[in-house]
Amino acid sequence: MTDAVTILAMHPEMHTLFPTPPKRWRWIEAGNDIDATINERGRDVEILLSASIEKLDNVMLSRFPKLRMIASISAGFSNVDLEECRARGIAVTNAPGLNSGDVADLAVTMLTSLLLGIPKSQNYILEDRWTSPAGPLRFSLRNLPVGIVGLGSIGQEVARRLSPFGVDLKWWGPRAKPDVDIPYVAALEDLADQCRGLIVCCRPDASTHHLISEEILARLGPEGVLVNVSRGSVVDEDALIAALKSNRLGGAGLDVFDPEPTSGKRWSRVPNVILTPHQGGTTYETLFAQAQVAQANIECFLDGRALPSSVL
Amino acid sequence: MTDAVTILAMHPEMHTLFPTPPKRWRWIEAGNDIDATINERGRDVEILLSASIEKLDNVMLSRFPKLRMIASISAGFSNVDLEECRARGIAVTNAPGLNSGDVADLAVTMLTSLLLGIPKSQNYILEDRWTSPAGPLRFSLRNLPVGIVGLGSIGQEVARRLSPFGVDLKWWGPRAKPDVDIPYVAALEDLADQCRGLIVCCRPDASTHHLISEEILARLGPEGVLVNVSRGSVVDEDALIAALKSNRLGGAGLDVFDPEPTSGKRWSRVPNVILTPHQGGTTYETLFAQAQVAQANIECFLDGRALPSSVL
Repeated sequence: MTDAVTILAMHPEMHTLFPTPPKRWRWIEAGNDIDATINERGRDVEILLSASIEKLDNVMLSRFPKLRMIASISAGFSNVDLEECRARGIAVTNAPGLNSGDVADLAVTMLTSLLLGIPKSQNYILEDRWTSPAGPLRFSLRNLPVGIVGLGSIGQEVARRLSPFGVDLKWWGPRAKPDVDIPYVAALEDLADQCRGLIVCCRPDASTHHLISEEILARLGPEGVLVNVSRGSVVDEDALIAALKSNRLGGAGLDVFDPEPTSGKRWSRVPNVILTPHQGGTTYETLFAQAQVAQANIECFLDGRALPSSVL
Repeated sequence: MTDAVTILAMHPEMHTLFPTPPKRWRWIEAGNDIDATINERGRDVEILLSASIEKLDNVMLSRFPKLRMIASISAGFSNVDLEECRARGIAVTNAPGLNSGDVADLAVTMLTSLLLGIPKSQNYILEDRWTSPAGPLRFSLRNLPVGIVGLGSIGQEVARRLSPFGVDLKWWGPRAKPDVDIPYVAALEDLADQCRGLIVCCRPDASTHHLISEEILARLGPEGVLVNVSRGSVVDEDALIAALKSNRLGGAGLDVFDPEPTSGKRWSRVPNVILTPHQGGTTYETLFAQAQVAQANIECFLDGRALPSSVL
């Protein structure tokens, strides 16, 4: 049997995702103060279990001199300084694709809620503006143009769920995909011009930072709605809030913010928003499946086998 | 050419649904006070255009001594005293099936919103309870049991839209249907016991009055959510409000109320609700299509041909 390996989970509650860890794993027991635990035991850590929300930059990584591997239980890894890992020979793995359906569930629900005007309707009733038996008319979802920004695994799950609603789907991404039968629009500006709703589910990286700019929001326009389930950094959040407050944008559904956690005060006077605390992909079901992938990556790493989902 | 016929639309804005009415139609011009118009011109009316929301009972019908036909632009006709119409030889037609997709859009959006806990999540953020980077975990929609109460045209459109979310669909109705592949549960009590969500889209009539009783709500339970897009009378609304206020029910999405319009005050302290003002089927697109059906019914009636969608 290989020697025991010392593992630190960046969040204490991650331990519950591994009810029967391999015998060679030596967990570092961490209390709620992860920082104190790292001060005390960081020098012993060989493998880090990451959840993609904590920053693993140069400075943080220097606190783990013996680190050999970072195993993320999330699809995302934009929290990790990959250059530093490459320089130090630290392996990095993630757990991709498993939460795409969960994220798509939330994205589609936010989009149809906004296109149906549910936040406005709820206020209409609560503010006692419904006074005659006939309520206000609305438009049908049928044939409404909806754009998907980034047609990866989440985008494709979004398309599958939206299709029976009869909306008119289009998509944009950095390059066309020959095997996709949803119409491709070659410029994001044009997609925003053409659509009543945009769902942002592209990969968050330097190329997509503030991709949804003031200009894109202006093109989406006062009847348009935006849903973001990627990362907060993909949207210029200040521009978004200004557009919503001045009714230059029709509504927004946000599961991700910049920074997180966001504050209630920031949103208290912003109309027509649907807000959830970065819950798209964090279901119990998916987390357990992702933990299994992380465990498989760690075991392969320890045995010197090929890693199932290597990032570097 | 047949003689001209005198027609009253029960809502003045219905005129806009008939941009090119047949030449033999004589509209009665009504202002906003429909009651005053009926007092003045009711005795001349031969055909009524109804929208299913105004009460056409015995007393109201007696104000139209020459009435020969009621043409509803809606699928519903529970507002019409059919016995009185039969006794007086008044023809009654409706416009069924055209808004099923629109109603299903709203029903499915309300259900997934509630199953995803969106009203709770929004409060979580606005009340500044999101304080650590990781948001609270949630359950996936995959495999959650969801019951459809009444599998008519709306129920089938609901099933089509819910299917890609991967929920575990079942249904109840007064009788099984051999050509349906969704599992049938023979007792509504059992469906409520088994399901995390119920969508009520059955026909509203005497047999379904308060079908969703205090007992059914108790069986649905504190984790269960109810969506009603049928009619307010199908749900015991007082029992529903009491269950929501005491957390004996997890949430409710309501497009219909008893009576309508409902008041904001009635719902201001009720948690976990999504409320819309009877907008499920009233889209511009569907109303124009329904008006075409009403027009076809009226023209066939005037020509003595078979009525495309007769209720009596």
